[in-house]
Amino acid sequence: MKRVVLKFGGTSVGSLERIENAARRVIKKVQEGYQVVVVSSAMAGETDRLIELAKKIMPLPPERELDMLLATGEQQAIALFAMTLTKLGYPAVSLCGWQVPIVTDKVHTKAKILRIGVQRIKNLLEEGYIPVVAGFQGVTEDWEITTLGRGGSDLSAVALAYALGADCEIYTDVEGVFTTDPRITDRAKKIPYISYEEMLEMASLGAKVMQARSIEFAMKYGVRIHVRSSFSEEEGTWIVPEEEVMEKVAVRAITLDTKESRITVVKVPDRPGIAYRIFKALGDAHIVVDMIVQNVSHQGYTDLSFTVSKADAPKAEEIVKRVAQEIGAEQVVRDDHVAKISVVGIGMRSSYGTAAKMFEVLYKNNINIMAISTSEIKISCLIEDKYAELAVRELHSAFIEEGEDIKVVNEG
Amino acid sequence: MKRVVLKFGGTSVGSLERIENAARRVIKKVQEGYQVVVVSSAMAGETDRLIELAKKIMPLPPERELDMLLATGEQQAIALFAMTLTKLGYPAVSLCGWQVPIVTDKVHTKAKILRIGVQRIKNLLEEGYIPVVAGFQGVTEDWEITTLGRGGSDLSAVALAYALGADCEIYTDVEGVFTTDPRITDRAKKIPYISYEEMLEMASLGAKVMQARSIEFAMKYGVRIHVRSSFSEEEGTWIVPEEEVMEKVAVRAITLDTKESRITVVKVPDRPGIAYRIFKALGDAHIVVDMIVQNVSHQGYTDLSFTVSKADAPKAEEIVKRVAQEIGAEQVVRDDHVAKISVVGIGMRSSYGTAAKMFEVLYKNNINIMAISTSEIKISCLIEDKYAELAVRELHSAFIEEGEDIKVVNEG
Repeated sequence: MKRVVLKFGGTSVGSLERIENAARRVIKKVQEGYQVVVVSSAMAGETDRLIELAKKIMPLPPERELDMLLATGEQQAIALFAMTLTKLGYPAVSLCGWQVPIVTDKVHTKAKILRIGVQRIKNLLEEGYIPVVAGFQGVTEDWEITTLGRGGSDLSAVALAYALGADCEIYTDVEGVFTTDPRITDRAKKIPYISYEEMLEMASLGAKVMQARSIEFAMKYGVRIHVRSSFSEEEGTWIVPEEEVMEKVAVRAITLDTKESRITVVKVPDRPGIAYRIFKALGDAHIVVDMIVQNVSHQGYTDLSFTVSKADAPKAEEIVKRVAQEIGAEQVVRDDHVAKISVVGIGMRSSYGTAAKMFEVLYKNNINIMAISTSEIKISCLIEDKYAELAVRELHSAFIEEGEDIKVVNEG
Repeated sequence: MKRVVLKFGGTSVGSLERIENAARRVIKKVQEGYQVVVVSSAMAGETDRLIELAKKIMPLPPERELDMLLATGEQQAIALFAMTLTKLGYPAVSLCGWQVPIVTDKVHTKAKILRIGVQRIKNLLEEGYIPVVAGFQGVTEDWEITTLGRGGSDLSAVALAYALGADCEIYTDVEGVFTTDPRITDRAKKIPYISYEEMLEMASLGAKVMQARSIEFAMKYGVRIHVRSSFSEEEGTWIVPEEEVMEKVAVRAITLDTKESRITVVKVPDRPGIAYRIFKALGDAHIVVDMIVQNVSHQGYTDLSFTVSKADAPKAEEIVKRVAQEIGAEQVVRDDHVAKISVVGIGMRSSYGTAAKMFEVLYKNNINIMAISTSEIKISCLIEDKYAELAVRELHSAFIEEGEDIKVVNEG
C-alpha cells in the first residue's frame, strides 16, 4: 500500500471549519487507496500568541520552557484534527513528538532531528487509524520537549516521509511555486516541477513557500514534495530530484528581494586585511552579509560595497563607520533603496548567454546594475528599487514567457 | 530539609500578574527554608474554552483525544510559571505528567493514579531547581496522556505530597473552610483545623473547597492539607487527621445544598421489590439518588420520596412515572423548591442531643422538615427552600456561635 505524509500549515488549520476542510483532503487520499499520515502545525496565530505571553514575562525566557509552552500549539491542533477525522468516520489518533518519538538533539528552540521511531505509526496504520502527528516538536533522549525552529513543521513532515518511505504533500495557502510573484505580473505561471537546487536558491532569495532547511533535508534523502493549496483541488508544484524535472529550461523563475540595504565604504586604502577587519566586526555583531563587491584598485584606493538586511542596516552602518575611521577610508554611504533581482534555473549550468541576456534586458530598460553575484544556478543583480517591478516583468517576459531561445546543451 | 507541595488553582494563575503573585508565594516558602514543589492548574477559563472547541466538533469527542487537548492547558500554565520563577531569580523547571512520571490507569478523562516516580523531582530539588508540575494529567504505561477528572489538580498535589513525604498547601480563591457560607451570615468563621471525615462530609454536601476524591486520598495516606487564599497572607484551614484537630466541638459547620429536587411517589403498594424497581430504573439511567425516605405503610400503601440533582430531576420524574404506572402507584410529584441543610462534626459521634437541638431550632422557626438523613458525623434535613437562609443563620447561631452547651463526652 502506498504511503503519503500530508502536512497542513497554520492557515490550513486556522479554525474548526478549516480543520474540517483539511480533514476532507486527508479522507480523499485515503479513498484513493493511500495510507495517510497527517502532520499539523499549530492553528494560525497561536504560536505568536504564546511567544508574546512569554516575552511579557521576560524578553529572553529560558528556551527549555519556551519549547514546553510552544509545543502546546501543535498538540491542540492535532487533537482537534483527530476528533474531526473521527467525526467524519475515519478514526484517527493524535501523537505528540515524544509519542512518535521524533528524537532530537538538546538544542532547544532549534533542535535537529536525530532519529524517528516509526513502529507506532506503522502499527496505527495497520490497525486502520490515521496517525495525526504534531509538527515542529521533538523530544530529547532524556525526555525534554524540543522544537525545531521556524518552518519546523515542514521538516517534521519531510523527515517522517523519509522514515516511512512516503511522498510528502505540503498544504499551504498558496497554490504552489510560481515563476515569479503573481502580484507583480499576472503572467506568472505555476511551476509544475522544480528541482531541489532551484527551490533552495529561491528559498534563500526570499521565496516564502518553504524553509531552506526542509528542502535541504528532502534533497539529501530524496523525498519528493508536493506543495499545494488546501483551498483548491489543483495540482501544485512538485519539488523533486533534478532528473525528474521533465521540462528543461535555463531559467525557472525570477525572484525579487527588497529587504536589503547596500552599504558602501568609499576610498578604502587597498591593503591586505582591510576586508577582514570590516567583515570581522560585522560578524562579531552577528550581522549576516549577503552580496559583497569590491572594485579594482585605483591609485591605491578601492570602493567596497555589501548588502545586509534592512533591519541590520543601521547597526551595520554604525559599525562600519567606526572601522572606516580606523582604516582611513573616506566615508561610508548607506542606500536603503535597492532591490535584488535574480534569475534561477538548473539549466543555467549547461547553457550559455543567460547572464548576457539578463544584463541586456536591464540595459534596454535603462536600469543600472549596482552589483552582481552568481552561483552555479542563479544570477543576482542589485538595482535601484524603483525599477524593481519593471525589471521583474521584463525579465519574466524575456526568460519565462519567451525563454525558448536560450540554448540548453548537455541535457538528459 | 522540609518539603512542601504548593498547588495553585485556575484563578490563582488566571493571568501573568496572578502567576507572578503565585510565584512570590512560592519564593517566600523557599526563603523560609522549604524545598518547594509547585503543582499548577490551567489558567482560569482555558479548560472550558478547549472543551467548548471539542464539543463544537462533536458532542462526545473520543476521550483519548479530549485528554490530549485538555492537557495543553496545564502545560502552558507550568511553562509560564517556571519562566516567572526564573525571572524572579529562582530557576525552575516545568514537568508534564508524563515527565514526572505520574502513571495512571487507562481510563481517559477520569484516570486513577497508579504510581508516581519522584526521582526526577528529587534530583531537581537537589540541584536547586523548583519543579513546577502540571496538575490534572498523567500518563499510562503505554505513553498515552490521561487526565484525572474534575478537581484532578488537587489530587495531583496530594498524591505528590504523599510521594515526597511533604505537606500540601492548596492555594485557591477562598480563605479556607468556613463554619458556613459567609454570604449567608457574616458570623461565619474560618475553621482553623478540620478532620478529613468532616471535610469529606462537607464536600459531599456541596462545599466547593476541594473534591471529595482528593480528601479521601489524603485521609488514606495521612497527607496534611492547608487550604488557603493566594491573595492573602492569612493562615487558611488545615485538613488533618482527627487526632490533630485540637478544638473538639459537636458541630463544626452548617452546610446548605439547594441543587436538589425531591420526587415523591404517592400511594405505592407496599410490596417487596417496589423500591428495587424504582431505583434500578434510575440507576440504569445513571442518575445518582441522594436522600431516600419511605414512610410506614398505611393500609397496604406507602409514600416514597427521594432527592436527585436538579439537572437530573426532569429525566428522573419521567422514568419514575413510567415505573409508577407499572407498579400501580397513584401519582408522582416533583418539587424543585427544596433545600438540604446539614450540621457536620466529628464530635457528634461522642455527644448527644445534636439531632434534638437541630429539630428544635427548625421547629421554633416554623420550618417543616420533609426528610431526614444521618451519618455518624452529620444530620441533614430537607426543608422548603424559601427557609434555607433563615435555617442556616439560626443553626449557625445555635451550634457554632453558642455551641458550647452541647455536651461532648469520651474525648481525647
